[in-house]
Formats: sequence, structure tokens, C-alpha cells
Amino acid sequence: MRDIFAKALVFFSKNKKRLFFFVAFFVGLVGPMALASSEATQEASHGSQAFLLWLPVILIAAAISKLIEKIGQPSVLGELIMGVLIGNLALIGINWLEPIKTDFFIQGLAEFGVVVLLFQVGLESNIQKMMKVGLPAFLVAVIGVVLPFILGTYVVGPMMFPGLSQVAYLFLGASLVATSVGITARVFQDLNKSKIREAQVVLGAAVIDDVLGLIILAVVSAIATVGSVSVGAISIITGKAVLFLIGSIVIGVLAAPKIGQIFSKINNNTGMKAIIVLSFGLIFAYLAGQVGLAPIVGAFAAGLVLDPVHFKFFRDPQIIYDIKESVSDQEPVTKSKLLEKIKHHSDAHVEDLIKELGNYIIPVFFVLTGMAVNIETLFDLPVLMTALVVTFVAVITKIVAGLAAGKGSNKLIVGVGMIPRGEVGLIFATIGAGLGVVNDELFSVIVIMVILTTLLTPPILAYLLKKQDKNPSGQVVDQAV
Amino acid sequence: MRDIFAKALVFFSKNKKRLFFFVAFFVGLVGPMALASSEATQEASHGSQAFLLWLPVILIAAAISKLIEKIGQPSVLGELIMGVLIGNLALIGINWLEPIKTDFFIQGLAEFGVVVLLFQVGLESNIQKMMKVGLPAFLVAVIGVVLPFILGTYVVGPMMFPGLSQVAYLFLGASLVATSVGITARVFQDLNKSKIREAQVVLGAAVIDDVLGLIILAVVSAIATVGSVSVGAISIITGKAVLFLIGSIVIGVLAAPKIGQIFSKINNNTGMKAIIVLSFGLIFAYLAGQVGLAPIVGAFAAGLVLDPVHFKFFRDPQIIYDIKESVSDQEPVTKSKLLEKIKHHSDAHVEDLIKELGNYIIPVFFVLTGMAVNIETLFDLPVLMTALVVTFVAVITKIVAGLAAGKGSNKLIVGVGMIPRGEVGLIFATIGAGLGVVNDELFSVIVIMVILTTLLTPPILAYLLKKQDKNPSGQVVDQAV
Repeated sequence: MRDIFAKALVFFSKNKKRLFFFVAFFVGLVGPMALASSEATQEASHGSQAFLLWLPVILIAAAISKLIEKIGQPSVLGELIMGVLIGNLALIGINWLEPIKTDFFIQGLAEFGVVVLLFQVGLESNIQKMMKVGLPAFLVAVIGVVLPFILGTYVVGPMMFPGLSQVAYLFLGASLVATSVGITARVFQDLNKSKIREAQVVLGAAVIDDVLGLIILAVVSAIATVGSVSVGAISIITGKAVLFLIGSIVIGVLAAPKIGQIFSKINNNTGMKAIIVLSFGLIFAYLAGQVGLAPIVGAFAAGLVLDPVHFKFFRDPQIIYDIKESVSDQEPVTKSKLLEKIKHHSDAHVEDLIKELGNYIIPVFFVLTGMAVNIETLFDLPVLMTALVVTFVAVITKIVAGLAAGKGSNKLIVGVGMIPRGEVGLIFATIGAGLGVVNDELFSVIVIMVILTTLLTPPILAYLLKKQDKNPSGQVVDQAV
Repeated sequence: MRDIFAKALVFFSKNKKRLFFFVAFFVGLVGPMALASSEATQEASHGSQAFLLWLPVILIAAAISKLIEKIGQPSVLGELIMGVLIGNLALIGINWLEPIKTDFFIQGLAEFGVVVLLFQVGLESNIQKMMKVGLPAFLVAVIGVVLPFILGTYVVGPMMFPGLSQVAYLFLGASLVATSVGITARVFQDLNKSKIREAQVVLGAAVIDDVLGLIILAVVSAIATVGSVSVGAISIITGKAVLFLIGSIVIGVLAAPKIGQIFSKINNNTGMKAIIVLSFGLIFAYLAGQVGLAPIVGAFAAGLVLDPVHFKFFRDPQIIYDIKESVSDQEPVTKSKLLEKIKHHSDAHVEDLIKELGNYIIPVFFVLTGMAVNIETLFDLPVLMTALVVTFVAVITKIVAGLAAGKGSNKLIVGVGMIPRGEVGLIFATIGAGLGVVNDELFSVIVIMVILTTLLTPPILAYLLKKQDKNPSGQVVDQAV
């Protein structure tokens, strides 16, 4: 970490103009907008058109945050930090940006963004590659769920929060379970590492992790409300989730080629291709949500089963035109050579098209995630110390789970990749608080644990990935996939 | 119109497979989704994740509707018709799609879509071109506002709705005023005609039209509520709108180059460029909304002042890479030639990037517009007959206004381009109904007029534009712009 700050200082001191531009732009961004909206915020901020201001605020913040790439950090970290800054401006009296946090449209766009991200990551992989890492991913997921759940419920809970009920400890254990894979997936993507073996193991483990988290949520909720667990009900929940995953793979593999073929008859341009590919991902995300899984798990599964070859019926006239244009009388090429170029372009294009959309909406999720961080939570010293202990347990248990990644993977990268806890941890805390078993202190501790695991993972993971690049002899990486 | 149906019949009869695919796909779309969501719709349809289903429903409907291009119609007409079909499925007992109409996220996405469309259309033009058609555009706008307002208030109102108050007639006249330029802009774009002189006149007139509509809204509302008009209040409203338009041009021309320059220092890739360009358009749309204008007018103004040259600091590494790849040892090119290719690509890219985004969200606006059409309204024969008379007046007054388009324009194309009435007409009807001066019959008539002008414009405009292409000698078209 010291390294990062040193690099940042060097970056700004080397050229004062850079710092000037950064500060000037932030003032330039906040100033006129505040002026323009000061009188109007009251009425308009919850109106349907307020997003026309909130969206550019988020996008420009994300654009500025790309500065962090210059000190070697993934841009997702910049987006999170920028989110934290914007989200806590109210502490220094600037509160006209507060409505962003509760804007329905922006929230929807953030959800849309993270679904598109995991869909993209799924597209970059495929079923065959995932199957290869099936066993290690399963082991990582199971250990990464069982270990923090038991430690949280039977050790950390009673030790750090004496006097609370056993059910409260159950909620703490449960909140330590589920990996929020969005952060990790984005770091892999920022550093162009989505296809390495470690990424495959983490993503596979995250899918299984989500199923296990779903079961634990059902069990813990049942114990907290009814006092006992119905094996039948839990079986149904688990069965639906597992059936969805198996079903999506079977249906996806069978239906994807047909769908591509039929639609190509209507209008075989890239715009059509992009719409169908995206719709496929969204429907899977929706169905995952319907069986109780995270929509991002469905989107990832959809990406896995889609293969560019299913869309070979589509041709992009613009690209063909461009390539034809680039060939003049003075530079003749053979027809087979030209066709090869076109084929290559068409194959790569499915992912590219979704990327263009992701460029606009994925940052919304991460800036909004940063905005949800309430810095004030970190000011209560006793709570913070307790939270640090819980965070330590959250980190170490996933790193231990990473050891199950097996030969061919950098185990530390897999373990760190599983660290981030997100929505699911907060869902447990919120349900527990709603039932009156999780008190204010425990709630704050869980929130801080989620914040720290979210913010610390990107720089650590980026550091490990770069170290591996420099010294690949230490671990064998499967580059053949 | 007969021509269109004949072509459609030929299209389907020529190859029965086409019809089969169309029907099979629509069944395939509605069937499984209904099954999947039947039990879940009740709880989930208003939840934050429902859009994960609604968005693909809309996108796939839009994709299917591209069939209409095969019979020579602009795809916007297909999207509108598909919207009408989906929006009225409840009539045959299928009502699980009804929640789409009131989904906050989908509504926001539609608004976002039409803003992006007008921003795109603005980007395809520039200030200099608009200034050239300034006077004819102004005349078309003024005549197109004054004529329907007077005819509606003093002739059609008293004649068709005897016994209603003078204020009710004022509302009818006002609802006939404002052109909804989204439909026309989309037809021009679908047919690749955004840059012809007629498109410039219509778009320029629509901006002025919106300012005049704003003034009339203020005047009519004041008369209906207070009974009189305060010249001071009207001056302030008008002043703000005019100041916004002049200010946006001045600020845009001065600031756009600087903004591009500063951001290029942070990260000069295309993703960054796209985000800044889009943010610029959204902020202008927001500010337009703040001064009472339609957000799309602001987005159009932003597009006008942005010129690709402002973003020359950005280079797309991917494109440079692609071009370098296409040059092998066997096909050498000079460096100057290569740089020229890169320059050409970079210049064109601003519009392309926004287009990728528009591909996903613009159809949402038009399908949702179609869904707002309630077919049942058309079943009441006396109301329908009255509405046809009012629609005739709505059409003829704008065609007369088109005569002011002057030399060098096809006057009929300009007139027809001004026909669609949209939100603004409905706003007048709603305010009037809220104040109790517009009764149910008058309200329905205004709604039908809006429906008919919206649905009839695309096929008529497409017909006229194609006729002009075949027989350009009849009218002189300024191709030099």
C-alpha cells in the first residue's frame, strides 16, 4: 500500500499541471452543476429527469478516476474511491448529490451494469474451460463457505460479541460466507486476465458459493423466524437453484445455435446480433433471480453457454466495407486472405458489442457501490477494532480456501479473488437487524467488513497479478486454455 | 398505404417459411416467458429486477419488428406497431406484460433513449448547417404553431365541441401546436437522410416550435387557473428558454475544445471519449429540462455544438492496431497513407460510439410509445369521427407551414415531418382534464389525434423520401451541405 501512495505522490509532483488539471476539473465539475441545480434540486431530484444530471456526474467521476491507472491500479479501484468521495461530500456540507443514492433509474442502471459485466466475463470463457477447473472450484467454494461460517458462528461471535444470542452469531457467520464476485471479475478484466486459470477457478467457485449462500440464507432465516429448519423446504430451494444451473447449460447449448439461425433470417447485421446476445444474458439473469440466485450468476451462466460460433450467420456490412476500403489497387490481396480477415472480425465481435454498452453502464455499479460506503462508520474506534478482527477472519478463511485451487493455479490469487463480500453479507445483516437479533454494533461491524473487503481486494489482487507476470516461474499457469 | 399491404402480402406469400418463422418466433417469445413468470409476476413485476425480463421482451420485439424493413418501411414504424401489439395483449387476456408500461426503469431508459437519439441527430449536423436554414425553419415553426392554435381554438373547437368553455377550446388549440420531433428524426435516420436540407429545416423548426409551445403552455395554464396572463411571468419563461439556447451555443463552442483537451490528458482512448461526449449531451438535456424545454431539445443543441474535431486528441488504440494488422510485409503502405487512414477513422468515431449505445436503448422509447396506444379508444365511433376531423386539421396546418420551407427544400417532406404530436399534446390534454375544463370526449379526441399523427407519419414520410430519391428533378435538394 505504501508503494501506491509513493507512486501517486511521484505522479503528481513530477508534473504540477496534472494535479492542477485534476483539482480544476473536480471544481469545474461540482461548481457549475451545483449552481445550475441548486434551486431546482428540491423539486427535480426525485423527478424522472434527474438521472439526466446524475448519470453524467457518475460517468465523469468514473472518467476522472481513470487517473488511477497511471499508478498501476485497476480502474475499478478508482471508481470505488471516487464513489466514496462523492458519497460522503455531505460530511463537508455538499449534499446536492445525495439523491443519486436513492434514484431508482440509477440503481437499475447499476444492476444492469453488473449483470452486463458478469455476462461479458462469461462470454470470455466457455463451458469446456470451466469444466476443467470444476473440482478445484468446488473445493474452494465449499471450504470458503464452511470455514468462515463455523469460525464466525462458534469462535468470533461468542468471543467478540459476548452476551448476544446464538442466532446472532449464526447471522455473523452467514454474512462472512458469500463472495461478491463482481469486484474480482472487474479486476481480472481491467488487467486483461479474465482468461487465466485463476480467474476460471474464482468464477466457478463464486457460482457454487452463491448456491451454498442461498441454502444458508434459507436455513438461517428459518431458524431465526420459526426456530427450526424444514428439510423439505430447503431441498426445494436448493433443487430449484441446481436445476436452473443444469437447465441453463442444457438449454443454452441446444437453443443458442437455433436462435442465432432464425434471427439471422430477419436482418443479419451486427445491431441485431448485439440485441439478441444481450437479451439472452438478461433473460438468464432474470431467471436466476426467480429461483433465488443472484442475477449476476445467471448472466455469467448465459455468457458461458454462448459461443461466438452460434452467431456466424451474422455479418457486419460496415466491417466488410472497412476492410474492402483498406485494400486498394496498389495493395492487392487474395480473396481467401480477405475472407479470413472478415471471419476473424465477425467472430470476435459479439464480445466487442457488449463491451461498448458496458463502457457506459458498468462504472455506474462501482461508483454507486463506493457511494454506499458511509465513512462515518469508520470513526467509532471500538467498533472499528472489532471490525478489523472480523475482517481479518473474513480474509484469512478465503485465503485458506484458495489452497484447494490445486496444481496449476497461483493459490494466493484464487484466495484473494474470493475475499470481497458484498450485497449478500449486507442482506444477512439487514434481515438479522429486521428480526431484532443483530444489534447496532454487530450491524456496523458487518458493514465495515464488507467495505474493507471490497476496497482492499482490487489493489492486493492487482499487485499479485503483476508480481506473477514478472516472475511466472514460481507458479505454473495454464496458458493453453 | 395499399402499396404497403400489397408488398407485405407478397413478402409473406413468396416464402411461407418467413411467415412461419415470424409466427413461431412470436409464440416462442411469449410462451416460455409467460410460463417462467406466471407465478412470479405478481411479486416480482414491480421489483427492481423485473426490468431484466422487460428489457429483453422490448429488445426482442424490436428485433422482430425489423421485418418491416423488408417491405421498405423504416424500422421505427415496426417498433411502434410491435409496441401497439404488446401494449394491447390484455385485450385478448394476456396481461402479464402490463407492468412494463409503469416500470420506472424502463420509462427512464425510454427517456434516455430518445435523448440519445436527438443527441445523435445533433452530432450528425452542426451549427453552420443549421444557421443556413435558420429563416425558413423559423417561418415553418411560427406558421406551424399559429395556424393550428387559431384553427383549433376558434374554428374546430366551437364547431366540433359546441357548449364547452372558451378555455377548453384554448386547450384543444394548444394541444395541436407542438411537434414531437423524435419520430421524424428517427425516420430520417432509419433512411440515412439526417443530413438532407429538409431534415435540417424540420429539426431547426422543432427547436423553435418547442420554445413557442412552452410559451403557449404558460399562457394557457395562466388563463385557465388565474384567468389572466402576467406579461412579466411569460417574459421570464421565454427569456430563460432563449437564453439557454443562445448560452448553450456560446458555451458549447467555447468549452468543447477545452474539455476534450483536458480529458485527453487523463486517458486518451475511445471509451473515455464516448463517456465525455455522452455526458455533455446528458447535461445539456438536463439543463433544457430545468428551463422548461424538452430535454431532447437540449440534447440536440449539445450535438449541434459538438464537432468531432474537438476530440482529435483521442486516439483509439484498437483501431490503430487493426489497421497496423491489415498491413503486412507483402503489402507495404507509406506512413502518411497509414496516418490518413487513422485520422479518418478517429474523426468518424464520436458518432459511431454513441450509435452503439443507441442501438440498445432507442428502440425502448419507440416500443414504449407504441405500448401507450390504447386500441380501445378507437372503438367509439362518434369520438373516432370527431378525432379524424381534428387529426385532419393537425395534418393540414403543418403541411401549410411546410410551404414556408423556401427554395431548395421539398416542402411536402418538411410539412409531413412536422406532423407528429406527442408528449406535449398529451400534457395539454392532461392539464386541461386536471383543471376540469377538458371533458372525457375532448380528452379522447386529443389522444387519438396524437396516436394517428404518430403512427401515420413514418410510412408517409418514408414514401415521400423514396419518391424524391427516384425523381430528384422535381425539387432541388441542397446536397452541398
